[in-house]
Amino acid sequence: MTAPADLSPAALRALARRGDWTGSTAGASRGWLQCNLAILPEAYAGDFEAWCRANPRVCPLVAVGKPGDPRLPALGSDIDLRTDLPGYSIFRHGEPAGHAASVGELWRDDFVAFTFGCSFSFEDVLIREGVDLRYLARGEREAIYRSTLESIPAGGFAGPLIVSMRPLQPADAIRAIEVTARYPLAHGSPVHIGKPAAIGVDPDRPMETLGRVSVQDDELPVFWACGVTPQLAIRQAAPDLCITHRSAHMLVTDIPMATLRDRSVAEGSPPLN
Amino acid sequence: MTAPADLSPAALRALARRGDWTGSTAGASRGWLQCNLAILPEAYAGDFEAWCRANPRVCPLVAVGKPGDPRLPALGSDIDLRTDLPGYSIFRHGEPAGHAASVGELWRDDFVAFTFGCSFSFEDVLIREGVDLRYLARGEREAIYRSTLESIPAGGFAGPLIVSMRPLQPADAIRAIEVTARYPLAHGSPVHIGKPAAIGVDPDRPMETLGRVSVQDDELPVFWACGVTPQLAIRQAAPDLCITHRSAHMLVTDIPMATLRDRSVAEGSPPLN
Repeated sequence: MTAPADLSPAALRALARRGDWTGSTAGASRGWLQCNLAILPEAYAGDFEAWCRANPRVCPLVAVGKPGDPRLPALGSDIDLRTDLPGYSIFRHGEPAGHAASVGELWRDDFVAFTFGCSFSFEDVLIREGVDLRYLARGEREAIYRSTLESIPAGGFAGPLIVSMRPLQPADAIRAIEVTARYPLAHGSPVHIGKPAAIGVDPDRPMETLGRVSVQDDELPVFWACGVTPQLAIRQAAPDLCITHRSAHMLVTDIPMATLRDRSVAEGSPPLN
Repeated sequence: MTAPADLSPAALRALARRGDWTGSTAGASRGWLQCNLAILPEAYAGDFEAWCRANPRVCPLVAVGKPGDPRLPALGSDIDLRTDLPGYSIFRHGEPAGHAASVGELWRDDFVAFTFGCSFSFEDVLIREGVDLRYLARGEREAIYRSTLESIPAGGFAGPLIVSMRPLQPADAIRAIEVTARYPLAHGSPVHIGKPAAIGVDPDRPMETLGRVSVQDDELPVFWACGVTPQLAIRQAAPDLCITHRSAHMLVTDIPMATLRDRSVAEGSPPLN
């Protein structure tokens, strides 16, 4: 089941908060920024932020929380990061330790929350710009893959890029590159196009998919950096406890995508802090 | 032989004017706008301008001359369009009627000159933006092809798109799309990428090339609209006499490429008129 495209971000968060929505946010609340989430102990926050800044297409920082504070008012006055995502992934000493629908019992006074843009956010922008996302009409969704591209290491954080792939006809691929380049806070332009084997990807063998995925003969696979990437980097740094969004279960924010056009990844503080 | 990259536009035009330079302008006067040229009788000017405006990626109008006037001061105070290009192509009743190094004897009081940006202009921009134009290092140049893409007809002007192809590695292709999208006056972003057969192109069989051309296994062919396209459209409209630049023999102007970034193809008069 797909979350309603026309549900307001606040309404979707309220559903998730009550445990009434535990599904993917793909296609949900079209027109609003969706964010990846990573929550780490403060001792790791500096290194993780350095890693994000070294890899702006992977983790374009949007806003960072205060230590111990589960709120993020810059992205929505009512946001509670312990409950407002429809799903969380938990990592203990870098190893996956299951999923949860809320993480209130795990919250700690030294947790720092990092949010960065998600490619779900730009599908609506692409549609408005006339890009034909034929895979949606075929009832398909993007898939994610582990690539042989490597993120730039920082502190203890390192690891391969996870990429999301969308199959597009050549003219639509060109337009999608032009459009997403103007939204660096939602991953920006793709990291790869065509030639999946060049980055170690077999399109028929995704790591995860939100549905059926196929690349037609007249299409090119187009690959964007994916916000699942930090879940592998976290394995390297291995903090005792870390919480992320569950893949495809995003924080839906009150930030309209239209306000992020040409907004660049900041050098100093995250742009929406 | 290649024209010097560091020769000023005025110096290159002076060489052409004296008949001392009759070669290609590929790679010449790096950093300056090079223009395609089409000179037609005034009776055809309205229809041709309509066709250019209908196909802005093919013929992004930069400046249009006054009837009978071979000067174009907006692009260079000394420009004489009868002599300042290193080569011209002549069309009589739409049919090719040979080349010339100058066209002073053919000039007429009812001639109107149209200039529009050329993809030669953006190679320097791509290099500055860190795009690896490996084909240059291989001693190769772009090639041009007749495609099955059709221009949008206007007046009596119609015909297929001629495209220029540059082989690029995927990440460089993405960056090249981003960069050229910001220069709509020099054709803007590509019209096609990968899958040459989809637009009726066999990369090994160019219509014309400035040198050897090859697409390596790790490269994608990237296709931009080419300013040779009007030479086919002119065959359809068939004015009694028409003069264009000779393929790859451009008008090198005094307009720095840097001033054209984000400058769009105008709705009203050509932007540099």
